[in-house]
Amino acid sequence: MIKANDPSLKSWIEVPENSDFPIQNIPFGIATVAGDTARVVSRIGDKVIDLKVLYDFGYLADLHFALEDFDTDVLNNMMLNGKSGTRNLRNRISELFEVSNNELRNNKNHLEQALIDIDAVEMLLPVRVGDYTDFYSSEQHAYNVGCMFRDPNNALLPNWKHIPVGYHGRASSIVVSGTPFHRPKGQQKPSEDESPVYGPCKLLDFELEMAFVTYQGKELGDTISTDEADDYIFGLTLFNDWSARDIQKWEYIPLGPFLAKNFASHTSPWIVTLDALTPFRVSGPVQDPKVLSYLEYSGDKHIDINLQVSIVPENGLEKEVSNSNYLHMYWNMNQQLAHHTVNGCNINAGDMMASGTISGPEEGMYGSMLEISWKGTKPVSMPDGTERKFIQDNDTVVMRGYSQKDGVRIGFGEVKAKLLPAK
Amino acid sequence: MIKANDPSLKSWIEVPENSDFPIQNIPFGIATVAGDTARVVSRIGDKVIDLKVLYDFGYLADLHFALEDFDTDVLNNMMLNGKSGTRNLRNRISELFEVSNNELRNNKNHLEQALIDIDAVEMLLPVRVGDYTDFYSSEQHAYNVGCMFRDPNNALLPNWKHIPVGYHGRASSIVVSGTPFHRPKGQQKPSEDESPVYGPCKLLDFELEMAFVTYQGKELGDTISTDEADDYIFGLTLFNDWSARDIQKWEYIPLGPFLAKNFASHTSPWIVTLDALTPFRVSGPVQDPKVLSYLEYSGDKHIDINLQVSIVPENGLEKEVSNSNYLHMYWNMNQQLAHHTVNGCNINAGDMMASGTISGPEEGMYGSMLEISWKGTKPVSMPDGTERKFIQDNDTVVMRGYSQKDGVRIGFGEVKAKLLPAK
Repeated sequence: MIKANDPSLKSWIEVPENSDFPIQNIPFGIATVAGDTARVVSRIGDKVIDLKVLYDFGYLADLHFALEDFDTDVLNNMMLNGKSGTRNLRNRISELFEVSNNELRNNKNHLEQALIDIDAVEMLLPVRVGDYTDFYSSEQHAYNVGCMFRDPNNALLPNWKHIPVGYHGRASSIVVSGTPFHRPKGQQKPSEDESPVYGPCKLLDFELEMAFVTYQGKELGDTISTDEADDYIFGLTLFNDWSARDIQKWEYIPLGPFLAKNFASHTSPWIVTLDALTPFRVSGPVQDPKVLSYLEYSGDKHIDINLQVSIVPENGLEKEVSNSNYLHMYWNMNQQLAHHTVNGCNINAGDMMASGTISGPEEGMYGSMLEISWKGTKPVSMPDGTERKFIQDNDTVVMRGYSQKDGVRIGFGEVKAKLLPAK
Repeated sequence: MIKANDPSLKSWIEVPENSDFPIQNIPFGIATVAGDTARVVSRIGDKVIDLKVLYDFGYLADLHFALEDFDTDVLNNMMLNGKSGTRNLRNRISELFEVSNNELRNNKNHLEQALIDIDAVEMLLPVRVGDYTDFYSSEQHAYNVGCMFRDPNNALLPNWKHIPVGYHGRASSIVVSGTPFHRPKGQQKPSEDESPVYGPCKLLDFELEMAFVTYQGKELGDTISTDEADDYIFGLTLFNDWSARDIQKWEYIPLGPFLAKNFASHTSPWIVTLDALTPFRVSGPVQDPKVLSYLEYSGDKHIDINLQVSIVPENGLEKEVSNSNYLHMYWNMNQQLAHHTVNGCNINAGDMMASGTISGPEEGMYGSMLEISWKGTKPVSMPDGTERKFIQDNDTVVMRGYSQKDGVRIGFGEVKAKLLPAK
């Protein structure tokens, strides 16, 4: 077992009940404190740990990092140290904050500089995303979409159980939780016999997703196998892949979604390492038909992560609209990464690969308003008496996620964003 | 008129007849000389101009650049100076090398360091590509594909004349001309009633494209109009969007091309500025049906650029297989960029946006083997007696392009790449 995952570990930092960030988590992110530069941070309870300060004071001296790995506004440099480098770093942070360790705890001066209240920092986008890929790997989601737009008896397309279907998305418009954004404008075709019109999107939707962040990969032309994939995955975030359904419907044939997706995507600020999530790995579904050799895998590669989505109207009460789980994936990350690189496509540190909408097998577990409201035919009732078929201006959408087992809860915090009216 | 475009200008550097690089070109790129670091360069005739050296010696002192704009392995920094910055730089280079200017010409020591023979440098990928978008904007290409895979009487999809259809591609696998690459492996479905198989692609194709490179754009949420677009386009390159047709066919429904494209794309090393191409602007086709307001444009926004594609078998003679022109575009760059940002999608300095395959209206002008060999039904005869339906292992594909008018020829050089066998 990875040392830092031991369920019996306690920290000398107080961890509130049901916190997403016990000492067994040790996620990574980028933060600024008012008036200071961005730096790499971790978190325990409600304390943000400044790794630049820890480095400056020599607490990370036995590891192979340099100042520029922590004194930076993206995690990409740090991640170039690879799996073993970041694993050692996480273990060291765990050791330093473990209840019996007094190295830092007894140094008031260092402590004051190294620990910051979560409310005092601004969390930034954690990585410079080189390339962003979105998969389409939840069977229930693909089935629901197929039922609505094609034929319930033939809902999955012929390639769906052979290929972890994915497409390239826009990296520039990935922003961190909390960044407000505007309802996009674009072309829609109101009906079959009308001409297309230009105006604000009318059917704005969220998509509940998880994204994994990669380490530096191999050279262009080389492949990463399902067995090797774990070594190229740094960690995961919550991901909201906003979608303009009416724009998507008119544009996506034959080359896929484009302006329906690239106006904004939100990620949670904390990257929870794959190491921290290892205790929550579970087996996936039996894949029938049998997959091709390069997609076969061994071991438990799915992960049990509870996921919730809420809508919060302006000045209104929060309403939970989805309760899903990352284990409801047909294709796991190892298969996605092996597929992505089977043709020799190269990956870089900081690439993000999202799961696609995660919908569980029952109503209440669907990961988009398209499915929850079943194309608008089943509106959701809000506490204030209004209804939602899709997202309205000034609504805030919040996604949360955590794994729990043996008394340990490893969470992601939240990804949240407020939709402003069209500009 | 932009000063540097004056057809009467001559340089004191010798320019061979039919060179792509007279003093009216002044393209930008990144080069290394054996044993030295990468830097920003330009070119006249067969001489590469080291802009780091020019900067060091003070020849660019009146402009607003810094050493790190030239002492770098990508053009992105330099491009952050925007259209007026790079226009002034191009004008200054033009001035310095104009036949009557002796500032640099008479300084043997400076000259020896500033000018390098083209054969002595290695040209690198000119920009760090943040995001890469591929459009699908040649009507003849879309028509040809529609005829082959759908219905000649209904070849264009309903959205094609309303939307400059595009999709996101992979930035990480864009490499510079001359980089060899391997035939990709992946899933194909040999026929309707067979199961998919895994193996080397059998139908490897080129796509003749131009790509434009953007300056830094506006904030997320803002739009760039067709009128403003020129100010956000730095320049153009030749672009080969390699495509694995059999992989594409099986994977692309419903989310578009993915592994069929992202194993490698090649760009030419020299970015020819939009300024240098201004004299070659021509009017585009009448667009019927009328486009929506945000896609309307004024002035001549198409560009007359002759384009050729050749195949060179290993140890064999070159065979020209296509002779097309960039003016055969239905949608121009201004429309593409206005469309791309109409939903608020942000662009960054160094983003690349490719045209899609450029096919002219007649046989001989098609920009892919798929069209040239009409799905393999019309093989091309090679000088050595062999045939080509698609590209074979160890073939080199070469694309060239230039504009010509009033005795001035502004060219791109070439983008070339050798296909190695599958790994």
